[in-house]
Amino acid sequence: MRKVVNFSAGPGVLPEEVLFQAQAEMLNWHETGMSIMELGHREAEFKQVAQQSEADLRELLSIPSHYHILFLAGGATAQFSMIPLNLLKENKHADYVETGVWSRKAISEAKRYGNINIAARTVTEKGLICIPPQEAWALNLDAEYVHYTPNETIDGVEFNWVPKTQGIPLIADMSSNILSKPINVTDYDMIYASAQKNIGQAGITVVIIRDELVKDPLPYTPGLFSYQAQVENHSLYNTPPTYSWYISGLVFSWMKRQGGVAVFAEHNQRKAKKLYDCIDSHADFYINQVHPDCRSQMNVPFNLKNQELTSMFLTEATQAGLANLRGHRLVGGIRASIYNAMPEEGVDLLVNFMRDFVRRHG
Amino acid sequence: MRKVVNFSAGPGVLPEEVLFQAQAEMLNWHETGMSIMELGHREAEFKQVAQQSEADLRELLSIPSHYHILFLAGGATAQFSMIPLNLLKENKHADYVETGVWSRKAISEAKRYGNINIAARTVTEKGLICIPPQEAWALNLDAEYVHYTPNETIDGVEFNWVPKTQGIPLIADMSSNILSKPINVTDYDMIYASAQKNIGQAGITVVIIRDELVKDPLPYTPGLFSYQAQVENHSLYNTPPTYSWYISGLVFSWMKRQGGVAVFAEHNQRKAKKLYDCIDSHADFYINQVHPDCRSQMNVPFNLKNQELTSMFLTEATQAGLANLRGHRLVGGIRASIYNAMPEEGVDLLVNFMRDFVRRHG
Repeated sequence: MRKVVNFSAGPGVLPEEVLFQAQAEMLNWHETGMSIMELGHREAEFKQVAQQSEADLRELLSIPSHYHILFLAGGATAQFSMIPLNLLKENKHADYVETGVWSRKAISEAKRYGNINIAARTVTEKGLICIPPQEAWALNLDAEYVHYTPNETIDGVEFNWVPKTQGIPLIADMSSNILSKPINVTDYDMIYASAQKNIGQAGITVVIIRDELVKDPLPYTPGLFSYQAQVENHSLYNTPPTYSWYISGLVFSWMKRQGGVAVFAEHNQRKAKKLYDCIDSHADFYINQVHPDCRSQMNVPFNLKNQELTSMFLTEATQAGLANLRGHRLVGGIRASIYNAMPEEGVDLLVNFMRDFVRRHG
Repeated sequence: MRKVVNFSAGPGVLPEEVLFQAQAEMLNWHETGMSIMELGHREAEFKQVAQQSEADLRELLSIPSHYHILFLAGGATAQFSMIPLNLLKENKHADYVETGVWSRKAISEAKRYGNINIAARTVTEKGLICIPPQEAWALNLDAEYVHYTPNETIDGVEFNWVPKTQGIPLIADMSSNILSKPINVTDYDMIYASAQKNIGQAGITVVIIRDELVKDPLPYTPGLFSYQAQVENHSLYNTPPTYSWYISGLVFSWMKRQGGVAVFAEHNQRKAKKLYDCIDSHADFYINQVHPDCRSQMNVPFNLKNQELTSMFLTEATQAGLANLRGHRLVGGIRASIYNAMPEEGVDLLVNFMRDFVRRHG
């Protein structure tokens, strides 16, 4: 394992094997004598990268052929705009579920373009954040889609069930948990995910969209932001972020070699359980404020009793080679992001450090 | 020099020294034990990359402090939308100059948002493409800006003068010739350039914008597409393409080590002269259709007498290690892109090959 364990929430840790491959191929991709980043996006070499990465992702998530896969620039934030611009048509109504910082950002952007109904929002019961059950949701049956965030990186809140939306298209921002466990793609009408957590490096976003949803966008939509134009051009409406796309392909291929998504799901469950068990066994010292039913398997936030202890924790962790554990600037505290590329040994080191820290400062 | 000489129009050749550095730092950036692509965009490490790259670009082009420098996602195509979305205000009039494929794309996108006047367009005189002189331009004095494309990569047409726009803000798409020669930034109100030619890898776009131009965008502008929001957030409105930004920084630093833009200008002039001299000395065999006053120093397109010769040229060139010389799919023929990172020896090899090809097939 590498010397430094990187718990960054994103851009986050990548598989060492992928980095070694990128390093080895840097100046000479597949005996071309050139770097893949020096090759035109319409040349046969890059097409090979693009097609293979799409095929591998399709295989990893068993994506049926009536779903398009796009690789787009601009991050999930671009999707916050593209979704209403492309999917609001008739009455401009959409439903959003508010479960944390990222869903709030999506909502705030959608409000530029339509009438947004908050179908449900997290509540705090006995000091714990809970996702309201489906029967408590107030869906607007006139909505053109329902948008939700299966995993909230900052708040550490994750759905362990898929909403049922009575025929209204369901859109999921899986930026921080895509490929972490098997999903049934047909439960969704659109899935999107920025790459910098489980897919690769920042700069590219994967969109998986059912063909019937791809239609003319609103008239003032930037050309680049039309799903239709992107589908017609196989994500080459303009020059895509080719190197980010290439790194995504290396990650997909690495995941296949490891045995696919089910293997990662098992691995991820074990890692998360170890961390939450450690937190719960020191519940007077480490505080996680999320109900066990919706604790994130990817991002584990927790607080210590005061700022002094938090700072000490961060300093000592860094010295111990446990990097980037500082919580998001909006919420503070500690956050351990344990994406697919985080080895279980990394979590073991963190758990040992946490136990030791309690002994010394508890 | 590397074994393969890469004449790709973009994504194009990068300096070998930059690729070696990126390769060396791939798994361990500045003794952090992590790749720069694994580090958060708000962490001190990435901020160092961002600030240094901005400072180096400011130095290379002598950019005054009342111009902001942004590093944005989406390529020049995103700018085609962002410019009208941010700069059209009162009367929604803008002037565009049409000199080739890329200016036409910018025009077509701007027409979604405003009334676009074509202030000038290239003409063909005696078989040669010419840029009309300033006195022949029909500027609309009510325009909120004038947009032009100093270098057209596909057509091989480059301005060797800067338009005077009678106080109307001047915007230049320098995607394919930024940093190729010294410019006076204050001749422009905004300059933008996608990275994949002279700056770095695809996925990031540099915007240099005078502070007075940064204002509230049109109401339906995606949040990500607001210059104001990007200025306020130092290009970190959302996660930027961090690795593409890092590669840009390595290129800027390499340019400084080589002696700066003036050194490249000399180098580029010499390279272009060698190629055009070769074409002109075989004018019955190689045909460049651009007036000598506006021949591009970056992209040298030429035709052979027929498709058979063109195909033979491309096949033999590839065999000789001269790669990616095929002209753009819209125009065919041959195109040699000779950006900053193209060594003069690469051009010498191409010129020798061209002479030899005439001897064998002329």
